[in-house]
Amino acid sequence: MKALRFHAAGDLRVEEVPEPPAPGPTGIVVAPRWCGICGTDLHEYVAGPIVTPAEPHPLTGARLPQILGHEFSGEVVAVGEEVTRVREGDRVAVMPLIFCGRCEYCRRGLQHLCTTMACTGLSHTWGGLAELATVEEYQVFAIPDEVTDEQGALIEPCAVAAYGVGRANVRPGDTVLIAGAGPIGALAAFCAASAGAGTIYVTEPNAERRARAERLGLGETLDPTATDVAAELRERTGGLGVDVAIECAGFGPAFNTCVQAVRRQGTVVQVGLHVRTCEVDPMLWALNDLTILGSWCYGVNDFPRVAALIASGRLPVERIVTGNLAVEDAESGFRRLTASSPEDMKILITTREAV
Amino acid sequence: MKALRFHAAGDLRVEEVPEPPAPGPTGIVVAPRWCGICGTDLHEYVAGPIVTPAEPHPLTGARLPQILGHEFSGEVVAVGEEVTRVREGDRVAVMPLIFCGRCEYCRRGLQHLCTTMACTGLSHTWGGLAELATVEEYQVFAIPDEVTDEQGALIEPCAVAAYGVGRANVRPGDTVLIAGAGPIGALAAFCAASAGAGTIYVTEPNAERRARAERLGLGETLDPTATDVAAELRERTGGLGVDVAIECAGFGPAFNTCVQAVRRQGTVVQVGLHVRTCEVDPMLWALNDLTILGSWCYGVNDFPRVAALIASGRLPVERIVTGNLAVEDAESGFRRLTASSPEDMKILITTREAV
Repeated sequence: MKALRFHAAGDLRVEEVPEPPAPGPTGIVVAPRWCGICGTDLHEYVAGPIVTPAEPHPLTGARLPQILGHEFSGEVVAVGEEVTRVREGDRVAVMPLIFCGRCEYCRRGLQHLCTTMACTGLSHTWGGLAELATVEEYQVFAIPDEVTDEQGALIEPCAVAAYGVGRANVRPGDTVLIAGAGPIGALAAFCAASAGAGTIYVTEPNAERRARAERLGLGETLDPTATDVAAELRERTGGLGVDVAIECAGFGPAFNTCVQAVRRQGTVVQVGLHVRTCEVDPMLWALNDLTILGSWCYGVNDFPRVAALIASGRLPVERIVTGNLAVEDAESGFRRLTASSPEDMKILITTREAV
Repeated sequence: MKALRFHAAGDLRVEEVPEPPAPGPTGIVVAPRWCGICGTDLHEYVAGPIVTPAEPHPLTGARLPQILGHEFSGEVVAVGEEVTRVREGDRVAVMPLIFCGRCEYCRRGLQHLCTTMACTGLSHTWGGLAELATVEEYQVFAIPDEVTDEQGALIEPCAVAAYGVGRANVRPGDTVLIAGAGPIGALAAFCAASAGAGTIYVTEPNAERRARAERLGLGETLDPTATDVAAELRERTGGLGVDVAIECAGFGPAFNTCVQAVRRQGTVVQVGLHVRTCEVDPMLWALNDLTILGSWCYGVNDFPRVAALIASGRLPVERIVTGNLAVEDAESGFRRLTASSPEDMKILITTREAV
């Protein structure tokens, strides 16, 4: 079958690889329909291997070359004999996290923090950028009829955003700042809106991305390179500051803007992954009694909740898609996103013949 | 009457000042018994005026020179006509925060975050380092018979520690790391123990302070300059990390040790006031789903809870006292503490004739 495999930095290949065998008792073979390119994939492409395993992964045995793709929808084509939740022909989204089920975190219901965590499409034999992928039953969630295959592929990144917004405990009417108008920032804005946020502000230094954020209806945008965002938002909130700030930029100054922009006893959620350390002022955290929450992935049961919100029309996730490509053209998608081309946000790939 | 007044950096004077007039309807005149020297007082002494007001404070009208002292017990010597909670002769602890009662934070019950906050002994006409002080009824809490005057003077700093431990939601049996074995760190260790913490670890670079921490029974001590504290604590917790870390050092590397030492989804509370910015790695906050909480002062109703714990014997706060001085010798106490002399931790001052 056809698959996009990561061999080394800058080395992606569309190759013929063996099809998966018949699934084990709790396994499911899925035929991916659409699969998103994620920031993690880009990091591998540019500077990897980082999370793709050079040595066999302790949980899955996977090693390079790695089939990529962990944001995908698909159709069930085969199920193991013990599988009860889905059957052949079902349309599904795949929750890519693979956990040991035995460690302290798994036993506490924190499987997304499993100490030997693997991920389909990053550290597992299979991935969404292939014609077939084998996953475990617990990874598969049937998607409602109202949710398209494209939307299904966006459940995974949207779950990341929803988990961050959930960590913040956004309440109806809250004023929310989103730092960064990339795909996760956009999805976080949708999630905050679906949680009832009153006013949503979005900071984004790139003018074209700000314009796009406005077109997407994410909220009111601010240019952090031209505006003192904290002062401006304090002014717009009667001197208080916003209730919640969600850092989706992974950038030190954006984090510090969030800290300065929230009200006393406000909440800052760190969703973006900082690749560099940064300078901060913990005095402000103490003086203002702040809550700062790291946010990692999503609960392993969060997909149905996100799918239900998409089905209800309250999460227009499909609006962030700026490109659909056949797998043969996947690398051009990686290049466009790596170049941070402002006309791109989320690119979906398919391995099916007819796009 | 006699009072210790702060005029400028390095300029403390024991002076004769006018006695307070008869109290207003909700006012109370207190004769301080013991009053602690706080880190904030030391900052004023060394580098002030910082929080003491050069211009009249908007809420209290106070300005330099400022009577110091905001950690004090005393005896009620006069009450205004509307005062009902205490009467003449009652032994009390004074909650020094003075709030406007009208701002957004006061209206939300977050008076300790009042936007025009003042503080008796820092930005108020009166202070604990004087023979008399006038405060508002809401600032005064009668102390139980079992609580001594010395202990009463320690309720204020202990409330700071208790609020931080409370922010962390320490549960019985939790493993807790306290960074810094100064007075707040010591009180935080007592508070964590009183909340049922299982094992308490205390990091402190100074050998004499570590020895004192052991003598005080704060917990097991570690030298962060000689030990990889995070690795050591992970080893001692079956690979996990501690449940809660409370940063009482106000020092960047101590904060980072806390972040590295807690388990995934653990909690770090920032109680210490950082006078410098510091370099941090927010990637770790996200990857480990951490909760980082700033902690400012205490709820304005927290004193009775702390007093009850002291009365029950579960908060041996008096153990941190390393010196009792008459006000005439107060400056020597400021000097000893400013020099970070390891034999000093908390020094109490009295303005009464007989010590």
